[in-house]
Order: sequence, then structure tokens, then C-alpha cells
Amino acid sequence: MSGDLQELERKERRTRSARGGRREAGASPALRVPFIRRNIPTYDILSEENLLRIEQTAERILAEVGIEFRDDPAVLDHWKRAGAKVEGALVRFEPGMLREIVSSAPETFVQHARNPANNVEIGGKNVVFSPAYGSPFVMDLDKGRRYGTIEDFRNLIKLAQSSPWLHHSGGTICEPVDLPVNKRHLEMVYSHIKYSDRAFMGSVTAEERAEESIEMARILFGADFVDQNCVILGNVNVNSPLVWDGTMTRALRAYARANQAAVIVPFILGGAMGPVTNAGAIAQAYAETLAGCALTQLERKGAPVIFGNFLSSMSLRSGSPTFGTPEPAIGSMVIGQLARRLKLPLRCAGNFSNSKLPDAQAMQEGVMSMLSAVHCGANFILHSAGFVDGLLSMSYEKFVMDTDFCGALHSYMAGVVIDDNTLAMDAFQEVGPGSHFLGSAHTMRNYQTAFWDSALSDNEPFEKWSAAGSTDMATRANRQWKKTLAEYQAPPLDVAVDEALRDYIERTTRDRPDAWY
Amino acid sequence: MSGDLQELERKERRTRSARGGRREAGASPALRVPFIRRNIPTYDILSEENLLRIEQTAERILAEVGIEFRDDPAVLDHWKRAGAKVEGALVRFEPGMLREIVSSAPETFVQHARNPANNVEIGGKNVVFSPAYGSPFVMDLDKGRRYGTIEDFRNLIKLAQSSPWLHHSGGTICEPVDLPVNKRHLEMVYSHIKYSDRAFMGSVTAEERAEESIEMARILFGADFVDQNCVILGNVNVNSPLVWDGTMTRALRAYARANQAAVIVPFILGGAMGPVTNAGAIAQAYAETLAGCALTQLERKGAPVIFGNFLSSMSLRSGSPTFGTPEPAIGSMVIGQLARRLKLPLRCAGNFSNSKLPDAQAMQEGVMSMLSAVHCGANFILHSAGFVDGLLSMSYEKFVMDTDFCGALHSYMAGVVIDDNTLAMDAFQEVGPGSHFLGSAHTMRNYQTAFWDSALSDNEPFEKWSAAGSTDMATRANRQWKKTLAEYQAPPLDVAVDEALRDYIERTTRDRPDAWY
Repeated sequence: MSGDLQELERKERRTRSARGGRREAGASPALRVPFIRRNIPTYDILSEENLLRIEQTAERILAEVGIEFRDDPAVLDHWKRAGAKVEGALVRFEPGMLREIVSSAPETFVQHARNPANNVEIGGKNVVFSPAYGSPFVMDLDKGRRYGTIEDFRNLIKLAQSSPWLHHSGGTICEPVDLPVNKRHLEMVYSHIKYSDRAFMGSVTAEERAEESIEMARILFGADFVDQNCVILGNVNVNSPLVWDGTMTRALRAYARANQAAVIVPFILGGAMGPVTNAGAIAQAYAETLAGCALTQLERKGAPVIFGNFLSSMSLRSGSPTFGTPEPAIGSMVIGQLARRLKLPLRCAGNFSNSKLPDAQAMQEGVMSMLSAVHCGANFILHSAGFVDGLLSMSYEKFVMDTDFCGALHSYMAGVVIDDNTLAMDAFQEVGPGSHFLGSAHTMRNYQTAFWDSALSDNEPFEKWSAAGSTDMATRANRQWKKTLAEYQAPPLDVAVDEALRDYIERTTRDRPDAWY
Repeated sequence: MSGDLQELERKERRTRSARGGRREAGASPALRVPFIRRNIPTYDILSEENLLRIEQTAERILAEVGIEFRDDPAVLDHWKRAGAKVEGALVRFEPGMLREIVSSAPETFVQHARNPANNVEIGGKNVVFSPAYGSPFVMDLDKGRRYGTIEDFRNLIKLAQSSPWLHHSGGTICEPVDLPVNKRHLEMVYSHIKYSDRAFMGSVTAEERAEESIEMARILFGADFVDQNCVILGNVNVNSPLVWDGTMTRALRAYARANQAAVIVPFILGGAMGPVTNAGAIAQAYAETLAGCALTQLERKGAPVIFGNFLSSMSLRSGSPTFGTPEPAIGSMVIGQLARRLKLPLRCAGNFSNSKLPDAQAMQEGVMSMLSAVHCGANFILHSAGFVDGLLSMSYEKFVMDTDFCGALHSYMAGVVIDDNTLAMDAFQEVGPGSHFLGSAHTMRNYQTAFWDSALSDNEPFEKWSAAGSTDMATRANRQWKKTLAEYQAPPLDVAVDEALRDYIERTTRDRPDAWY
């Protein structure tokens, strides 16, 4: 057996070296794509009748309880013009009204990257993996947990760019807390452009910062192009339950106004910001998200928008949010069904955990949540890599563990291909009972693309693993990210564009005093 | 927030103590059931057309290539009488013939436990979690990896019995290699009966050992009862590709003859014992398993039988089998669809890994494979807890980590319940925008059953986790299994039955010289 394998492996190495391409472990290069087009169906768990009951409950919440829109009068004007009932900040909606408004949003759209080969199509059967977003802390096995800096930010962008299994550069990959909050966004957007050639996200923490993020995208892509094409995403959160605050709606409107895609995300911690029962939390999420999506269409009809989802549970013992738990994992399947009925692209949260280490808990919770996002049909999976510590920390080791798992998911979503070659009747006729398939023509024809080959899992026999140092996955991940950073090379960026961006940042911040909160 | 939580927790403690029941962490006692009746659908990924193509390929394998049945003439007589083409050991089958034969097997059946409250129903929408099976080694964080002994065997049975999240005591939970192979099975069956009051499995490594396992079940349940009811399972393996050896068919026939359920399992390592492409491996698995299932019906029409599944991939770099990888995970969905078309109960393999430690790799691979078993509709999930090291070792720590995850799956498979209470319209009317749900009547009514609460995941804030010793999940699991073993109490066993079993073992082994291989 081992002779056949060595022969296969020799062939493999020659092929790989002839191709000259970067390759993680033995994973099939056929899996390397700018985004995934899923070849497996979504996992639909609720009946039509039960979906209708959730939608009707959401409509009752919107009509009877309503949503408050605070500190943004322009939003109230939009709702009045659209025919909603506005009393102070409280807005109530007739059943069906919001669904009618969102029908103008595109079912799929392209987000452009500065390298067109990395453009991603969001919606339909497409799946885009994007790194985790928003943690104030970073951690690694050497230095432990500390506040994130712009150096960490750049490192993580570089790790993301170096992985063939992510498709998007993300946004606030960690908070660079060494920079003033009112200038931070400029360096974040610049770092995405400089160190990655994939699509990325901009700031939402103030209307001005959203607009400046978009302005930098205009410098990169050209103002006319940006007006007609999506080049930047903004991830805006509902202040659940049933409140949209002005900071978020102003950012949302800035993105929509510029024809850029807002990602609309409630964060419902069941039992605190929503009911403890999944059905009610889902109805609330649907109502809140639908209102945000509709608002983008009132700001600019036809602007791209993404229906977001972030269900979470809580620990009754500590009051802490919990992640990667079963109720949100199964609840997301329902959100997926509801989003598809609205014909809107869906965002889910991916691989996260409440563990404080890249340990068994981290991956148990991470894989459960990530598979949920995959099965529910999410088109844009934020938080695909790096989160631990209940969203508070980005772990360098977990980041590379998660990107490796994202690779496995490329193979998973390729599904089971049925054709004459894969059915392998010729192999059975060649091999027959009691023999083996290693040297068969069918194996030689197919082995290169047959199996996912993880870069971080150890598949050696126990004795070889012991002799090689008895490492756990976290230790191997620690070596991997250091090696990747050491070998990183920035994708070329046009010098004039680079200078124009630096010049814009200089002009924008020249007379702006630092603000730290 | 924290005041409300404390109030909830105080109420919770009072309720729990009044009930007096054993309880793992804060997990809802409503989840504690003798087996799961799934409230989520299966995840069906292939179309009718593609399923037919696989079935047709399997029929061609059976008709054109055939299966060898070695060293068991009674099997060849069965096939001749049934109308198959027998040439030497090679048997070929007309299309449709085996499907017709297996139609006499029951779609669901009850396996009885000595405590009737622990009877399990196998088939249909039912899911039964059973521990891992068959590893020669055990490991724990204190003593590392070593050969399993009868003491380990008993310890693991006790850990299984102590978990509310397993439903079955399993079989060869580890190999007790300190006992002679020709007597080992008697002590294994005895340990299941003595230290557990759940259903269990018997030996298959020789016809005599299968029959002696069943005989012990007769002492426990009574011979007449055993003849009419399933009380013991035997897990028999195909010698893939396309070979059934006599040891296995004799064991298979012993179980069927006694009206006990054989579990029919091919072990196809894609690229070695089957094609490297999933579709072909699935067609082969279907052919091999179908032949085994049919054989049980020729031995005794109507005997219960379980359609087994164990797809695996291999590492091209090392030739090692790989586990928890994406191709078998997605391939199992198809096996599930095919088994349901045959109206046979389905067995899948659960939580296993090639990691040599209870680390991130162990749970990443474990959760991927376990969720695959859950989604594909497996009714009997063998290897639900404990496996690491590519099936070679049972890890004490991973065992308790996996049983905790089995608990989470109880909540997951409860699905999303839709009714007036869960839709929570009253909560929205009570709470309204911008407030919180902690103290609401709806929360008070539902919090006890709302969320899965893991006994091993740490959900504390980072600072509390640090102050408590910065443990990883494996360390907490190490403490947990020691505590569980220290607190274990054996379920009462009738003294006369106990004596009869010991007497049977004494009589059976008195004149049998020890055999060690």
C-alpha cells in the first residue's frame, strides 16, 4: 500500500511544482475559488404553515408593538412618506408594508474587489467566508490576551489574505485601540486596501466615518463606478429589542445612499434582548431586520442590502452570552428559510465560541455554529475565522484553525457529485472482491481532487505523532500563523492610488483632534 | 440584570432540590429521555434521479461483479435457495432480488434493557446514542495512552451509565486486553449487565462468542422473551471491498437466528477498500450492506437488522485513515436517504477523530462527524462518545466531552417549536421597545427549559475564568470523569440473576484454555 501511495505522492508533487501555485497541505487546488457556489441544498426544517405563523407574529409585532427609531429625524420622514404610523420615535407598520418595500432590493449582487478575480457574488447559492469582526482584544499562545493594535489588525488582514479558504477581507478584524476612534476607520480601510486584494467592509460607528470609508473606496475604484457598483459593505446593528438608534440608521443610510450594501443585524441575546423561546426571538429578529432592510430601500431604491442574523443564548448561571449552542444553531435554519422567502441575501455569524483558549471547547462551539451557517443557506458568513472569548477576542491560533476548517467546508459544499466517473463502475470491474483500489485507473484519475487534506489536523499514527513532539492543534496553529506572516507578500497596489489614499487620510485628519471614546 | 438572574437561579435551585434528581449543570431535565424522538427533519441532499443512479450502480455491482462469501457454506446454501448465482464463493444477484428479501425486516423495533424505562426504539424518527466501540487503547491526561483493561472497560461503562445523554451501554467500549480473547466477551457482557441498566451489545469475534453473549442475555431476560424480543445487538463488519468472511457471517447468523439484531457495517476507506469518489463508495457500501441485511432475513425472516454506514477518507500524505472529514460527512446524508428507501433502521458512526489528544482537532472532527450522523437520520449512533486516535483509543476526557455534546444534541433535535407560548406575543406586548425580557412573565414561564447549559463549556467572563485557574476543556473533563467515577453507584441487580451469570461464566470457561490471539 505504501509503495502505491508514494508513487501517487511523487506524481502529486511534480504536478504541484509545475503549477507553481501556493497550496495548503495536500488540499485540492480545484477547491480554490473566489467564493463558493454551493452544490448542496439548504437544510429547511420548518413547514410552510409554521413559517407563516412566524411571519404573522412578526407582522403583529410591527403593527401592534412597533419599533423605535431614535435620534434620526430623516428616518421618521421616510416612514411617514411610506405610510407608516409614526408617534414620536415609535413607528408602526401595516402588515405586508415592509415586505412590499424590500421587494426592490436585489436578490444577488456582486461586491467588487480591487483584484477583479476576487469579486464575490452575494446571494442565491453563493457563500462568502469573511473573518471575525469587532473584538477589542487579541490573543495568542505566546503573549496571551491584550488589547488589539493596528499592528495586530495588519497581521490578521495578512493572515486572511494568505488563506485560500477565505473570500473576503472583512472589516474590523480587531479593534486597533492604539488609534483614536475618530481616525481609526481610515487606517482600517487603508490596511484592507494595502494588505489585501479582496473585498472589504467599512466603518459604521458614525455617519462621518461611514462616508469617509466610502470615500476611500471611491479613490480606489472611481466615484462613477462606486455609484453603480457595490465595493464596500457596512455592518449595522439593531439595538434589540425593537430599537434602531440614530448612529446606526445614519450609517445605514450613508451606505444605501452611496449604493453600497448595508448588512442589517439584530443581536438578540435570548432572555435579555428577546424572548427565551426560539420562535419568538426569530419573529423579533425578522421584524427588526425587515425594518432595517426596508429603510435602505427608502433611502435609495434598489440599493443592495443583506438580511442579517445573530441569534444567541445565555447562561442562566452567569448571565453571560453563550455561543455555538444548539438553540441558535437550529434557529438559524428558520431565519434562512425566512430570508429566502424575502428573496434577500443572508448573512450569518460563523465560527465563534465562548472559550478563552483555542481548545476543544473553541472548536466544538465553533464547528456547531459554522455548520449551522452553512446549512441555513447563509450567503455572507461573517465571523468565519478567529473568534473566541464570547466575541471579545480574536485568537491568532483559532484564526488559522478556522480558515483550515473553511477549507474543509469547500469540499463539504461540493456535495456528492453523481456521474459516470464518480459512480466508478469501471473501478469495480477492474478491482473486484477482496482487492484494493490504490493502483486502479479510477484512483489515478481522481485522487488529486478526492479528499480534503487539512493543513493542521494530525493524521499520523500515534508513534509518529509522539516522535514528532506530541503537539496539539493549537501548537501547530501557533507555528502556522508565524510561518504565514513571515512568508507574507503584499499584493501589488498602484503607487498613485496608494499616495492618493495616504493624502486623503492626511487631509481628513489634519485638523481633527484625537478622540479616544 | 444580575439581580433578576440571581432570582431565577434561586428559584431554579429550589425546584431542582425539590425534585431530588441528578442533574448535569443547568441542563433542562425536560431533555432527559430514554432515547430521542427527533423533531427536526433529515437533511436530504440528493434528488430522486441521483438516488436511483446510485441504486442502479449498486445493483450492477451485485449482478456483474458480485460478492464473495468465504468460509461459511451455510451462507452459500442460503443464496442458492434464494436464487442467486453461486460460483465457488462468488455470489451474484439479480437486480431487485436483495431489496425484495430485506422487505421482511422490521422498519423499527424495540431493544429491551434490564430496566424497562431504558428500552430504546430503533428506527423511524428515533435516535439512540451509544458509546464508541472497539479501541485496543485507552488514554487519559494523567497516565497517557496504554492498552485497555477490564478495569478501564468497567470505568467507561460506569461513565456511560452516569451520563443522562447516552441511551445505550454499547459493546466493546474498549478492548480489555488483560483478559484472554476467548473469555473476554463473557466479562464484557457481564460488565454491561452489572454496571449499567441500559441496553447493550454482544460479541461477534467468533460464532461461539456471539452465541455465549446471547445466552447470557437469555439468563437475564428469559429464553422465551429473548426468542420474541430484541435484547442484544451484534455489530458485524463487511471485509470491504465486496467480501464477507465466515467469522462475520457466522456471527451475523447467530444473532439473526436468535431473533437479535445484527448491525451490518462496511468499513470503506475510500481509495483503498473502495473508490476515492464518494458516489462509488456509497454504491459499494449500499451493495455490501444490503447483502448482509438480506442474509439475516434468510437466516430468520423478520429478524431485526440495522443498516450500517461507515464511510471514511484517507490522507494521501500518510496513507492513514482520516476521520471527521468533509467527504464522509456529506456522503452519509446520501446513505441516510438510501436506508430510508429500504425502510431499514440506520446506524452511523458518531463522534470520532484522528487527534491523539482531547484537543481542538478532536472536537472539530468529532462535531463534524457527529452532526453528520444526526442530520443524515441515523437511528443508532455508535461511537457517540470517546474516540480519538483514529479509532485506536478511547479517551476518558473526550468521553465526557462527547457526552456533554450529546446533551446539546438533545436540545438541537428538539428543533424550533412553534406555538402561542413560544411565539411570545405576550412578551412583546409586556416588554416593548428598548426594555429587557429578564423579568417578564414569559421568561419566568420558560427559562427552565429554554437553553442547553453545558457542564463543561466555560461561559464566564475572561477575568473570572482566569481567577478560576484558566482551565481548558480537557482539564475540566479530567476533573469531571474522576468525580463521576467517585460518585458512581451501580443500579441494583437481582442477586439470583447475578449469581446465575457468574455461574454460567464459570461453567463455560472451566475447561477452556486461555487464548491470547
